[in-house]
Amino acid sequence: MNELTILISCPDQVGLVTNITRILAAHQLNIIAMREFVDEANKAFFTRIACTGELKDTNLLEEKLLETLPDAAEVNVITRKEKQIAVLVTKEYHCLAEILIKNQFKTLGANVQCVIGNYESLRNFSEKLGIPYFFVDHNNKEKAQFEAEIKEILNHFDLDYLVLAKFMRILSADFVKDYAGKVINIHHSFLPAFIGANPYKQAFERGVKIIGATAHFVTDHLDEGPIITQHTTHIDHNFSVKDMVRAGKEIEKKVLLEALELIFEDRVFVSGNKTVIFK
Amino acid sequence: MNELTILISCPDQVGLVTNITRILAAHQLNIIAMREFVDEANKAFFTRIACTGELKDTNLLEEKLLETLPDAAEVNVITRKEKQIAVLVTKEYHCLAEILIKNQFKTLGANVQCVIGNYESLRNFSEKLGIPYFFVDHNNKEKAQFEAEIKEILNHFDLDYLVLAKFMRILSADFVKDYAGKVINIHHSFLPAFIGANPYKQAFERGVKIIGATAHFVTDHLDEGPIITQHTTHIDHNFSVKDMVRAGKEIEKKVLLEALELIFEDRVFVSGNKTVIFK
Amino acid sequence: MNELTILISCPDQVGLVTNITRILAAHQLNIIAMREFVDEANKAFFTRIACTGELKDTNLLEEKLLETLPDAAEVNVITRKEKQIAVLVTKEYHCLAEILIKNQFKTLGANVQCVIGNYESLRNFSEKLGIPYFFVDHNNKEKAQFEAEIKEILNHFDLDYLVLAKFMRILSADFVKDYAGKVINIHHSFLPAFIGANPYKQAFERGVKIIGATAHFVTDHLDEGPIITQHTTHIDHNFSVKDMVRAGKEIEKKVLLEALELIFEDRVFVSGNKTVIFK
Amino acid sequence: MNELTILISCPDQVGLVTNITRILAAHQLNIIAMREFVDEANKAFFTRIACTGELKDTNLLEEKLLETLPDAAEVNVITRKEKQIAVLVTKEYHCLAEILIKNQFKTLGANVQCVIGNYESLRNFSEKLGIPYFFVDHNNKEKAQFEAEIKEILNHFDLDYLVLAKFMRILSADFVKDYAGKVINIHHSFLPAFIGANPYKQAFERGVKIIGATAHFVTDHLDEGPIITQHTTHIDHNFSVKDMVRAGKEIEKKVLLEALELIFEDRVFVSGNKTVIFK
Repeated sequence: MNELTILISCPDQVGLVTNITRILAAHQLNIIAMREFVDEANKAFFTRIACTGELKDTNLLEEKLLETLPDAAEVNVITRKEKQIAVLVTKEYHCLAEILIKNQFKTLGANVQCVIGNYESLRNFSEKLGIPYFFVDHNNKEKAQFEAEIKEILNHFDLDYLVLAKFMRILSADFVKDYAGKVINIHHSFLPAFIGANPYKQAFERGVKIIGATAHFVTDHLDEGPIITQHTTHIDHNFSVKDMVRAGKEIEKKVLLEALELIFEDRVFVSGNKTVIFK
Repeated sequence: MNELTILISCPDQVGLVTNITRILAAHQLNIIAMREFVDEANKAFFTRIACTGELKDTNLLEEKLLETLPDAAEVNVITRKEKQIAVLVTKEYHCLAEILIKNQFKTLGANVQCVIGNYESLRNFSEKLGIPYFFVDHNNKEKAQFEAEIKEILNHFDLDYLVLAKFMRILSADFVKDYAGKVINIHHSFLPAFIGANPYKQAFERGVKIIGATAHFVTDHLDEGPIITQHTTHIDHNFSVKDMVRAGKEIEKKVLLEALELIFEDRVFVSGNKTVIFK
Repeated sequence: MNELTILISCPDQVGLVTNITRILAAHQLNIIAMREFVDEANKAFFTRIACTGELKDTNLLEEKLLETLPDAAEVNVITRKEKQIAVLVTKEYHCLAEILIKNQFKTLGANVQCVIGNYESLRNFSEKLGIPYFFVDHNNKEKAQFEAEIKEILNHFDLDYLVLAKFMRILSADFVKDYAGKVINIHHSFLPAFIGANPYKQAFERGVKIIGATAHFVTDHLDEGPIITQHTTHIDHNFSVKDMVRAGKEIEKKVLLEALELIFEDRVFVSGNKTVIFK
Repeated sequence: MNELTILISCPDQVGLVTNITRILAAHQLNIIAMREFVDEANKAFFTRIACTGELKDTNLLEEKLLETLPDAAEVNVITRKEKQIAVLVTKEYHCLAEILIKNQFKTLGANVQCVIGNYESLRNFSEKLGIPYFFVDHNNKEKAQFEAEIKEILNHFDLDYLVLAKFMRILSADFVKDYAGKVINIHHSFLPAFIGANPYKQAFERGVKIIGATAHFVTDHLDEGPIITQHTTHIDHNFSVKDMVRAGKEIEKKVLLEALELIFEDRVFVSGNKTVIFK
């Protein structure tokens, strides 16, 4: 008996659940958990089905499902295997450490293939935990060149996702397009507040009583990709910018790791500029 | 086109979702949202299905569903109508006020038929908001007599639920049995901590850093019925018992109203001594 | 023995706490609780001192304190008495109801003198709870005229604060200046996100995973006054704009009432465009 | 200019703050922040004062303060230096990793001198991060012998605190007495709920909707020492015991690290069986 996760998205129409479940029954698959959502504004249907059974041919099941579904349906039958990821960093350790610790103890739900940094700061730590570290300097070169060097490294691995764990360089639209839907970033504010540079300084100056962080897919609009997870924490007048940064790091790593867990468990759909998440 | 909610619970077996959805399709019902849960420990299956369609005969649909389901299945096809409730109180106003305000502005999801109190304290307020208030004195009489007087009043109404909104008398097993699964209580601690009397005093003495509240169905084991909702809030050494009571009231009304909303929207199943809640 | 609260703000310098406490000791005042904060950026010192004692002359104490403090110090010796407030509303009941219920049961820490609305919607409810309701139509007149009519009503009362409890008209700079530091507003977003109209619609379109609310003092820059309290709550893809509005109302009333409690207990200083709050 | 933290606890009486601040002024110390609390039930006064100045002799200041304070006063003038700690573990990595990562990047506020484990499971990880690991087997020996072996190791270091980071052996009253007020434990429930073994299993069986964790000082009453920090998180019917354990680990590490930060910054007093914490 295998465990399967089936992800389907398609234009909404009457009878989708019935048609889908009938096909699963015909394949002797037993539904363990099923979630669905209809995005009324976009007339789009999403479902995530966890099931068990003796499936011989996932391609065949995908075909059978596609036959019964409207055109433009996307079907993905996933047999559980761990995702492969690369992590991009600059100097801050807190998100990277959280990822590498969970990787080390096999609780990340993914395998970290490598860490790429535009400083050497985190090499020592990464290597101690057995992860190859690649330094790509961003100084004295065009962004295209910088990104070409990163891609050169990435191409050595078969990767499902790139995680920007406080990577402080803005990626070009070209780069993002090459990894569409595969790049996850942690932004250090509760977006859309404090878009752009120095969000904690902005927060300090505005005198807000909460700060937060946002994990989102990267698109070519800076800080505007589909939001996956967000959390906030209370602060008060005693917090300097430095205190905010310190409190913010705890939120950042929590938000990023929560997003990664959802993604690695195949619970996240992108619908337009939003996410549909079946927890 | 009507909106229906279908609640089903039964022993778990292979193919339940497929069988259920096939019958719904045969009745031209379109599934809007479907949630299900298998309680592995008790091999019990629960589902809540929201659908739309032109259903002529809810009894017939229930029969057809029962035919396809294991013995001991419970099926409930609900066409939306507001629940009818009575509220039992003692002296504290905060939960009652929250209920009566939402009742007044038609956002409770239920109609308050009456308030019953073992003091006169809340008569004036209830009547201002147009709700009949019945005083049942508990002094100088047996509990059986006290409860008989309450039942006498309740019998004048066709009630779905009794809400104990800080009703500080313990109901007898006999009373609870007569309203099994229909009595909701708000307890002023995060159960199972601080069972029994004076939970805030207990919390003060223990020096906890969080207090909470619990909404639960009432069973004949005091403070041990199935939990519906809980919330907590942080406190510190500055909090006197009185401060805890004040902070606790805010949690209590939040927890109770959240529980009521879930119940009135038919989202809550009881499974043994636990609840299954489809949010 | 009386209870006093002493509020002091002044330019920071060495020895302030020592000088202040010496004077209090000379007046036989016993310090129960003392909080202080130095705003390093603005070199400003703030303290709130709760004390007990037999003070005959609060003016004399203020003078003695001013003598020992730097120029531009503000000293306020407060003997506890309830604040007087007016509440301005439009059509939504949830914040007003929370205020009037606490007013009714004497747990607001202030007395509501009147409610002023630019619709008649909430007259009935306000009057049921014994509070005079004044309707001021905003249609077919200049804003200056509209505000003059409101002021005419306000002038009949001796008011400490105006509470905008979902009052959906923007007040002019002139009006705000007349009540500087006295007008508290509840904004239905976690500012500075979603400034302006329809924040929940903006939140829906952006696909955020948290929504929030902000209580702030009103200045002549819309939605940019000093923030007093903020809270957030998680939402997900299932939330329609309507669902967000419903969830948001619960946050709004919590945030506003928390802000009012802090203000009515003399715990809030304004420092530039921020607040310093001694909880 | 040095930074000092002064901790004072003593029986409460009139004029304490004035007397204390007068002595600080006489030593040319400038108060940056001052917090105080009176435990009314026990008539006990606590204060934490952060100040700056050129203090030559901390002992002299302590003497001067003691002279002016009631008998039984405790005065502690602390010049900032990092605490030294040992960490005791069993098999679970999550709390240890959080501590060692922060230790590695110098953000713990303390130096980890060694890790002691009753299994070998965490040796490799600790040593990778440069921390000596000592294995003390608990099998086939008396508890007194087991603890003697631990003490033998601890005696090689000059330690301020012992941190039980999911150390699953119960320490004897004798051991605890030797390290009174120095042993911090993380308990995997929101105490006092689910005291004892298998709290997550207990939580699962009770069907609670929140789980939590508690950091506390260890006394010779199991799970009943003074509570430092607690947090909770929501769960639902979908959570198996295993899911609760996973969610619980995130809370446990958050709660423990928050407690350690407070302790390492000298913000925590013990008052009877409670803590007074000046955040």
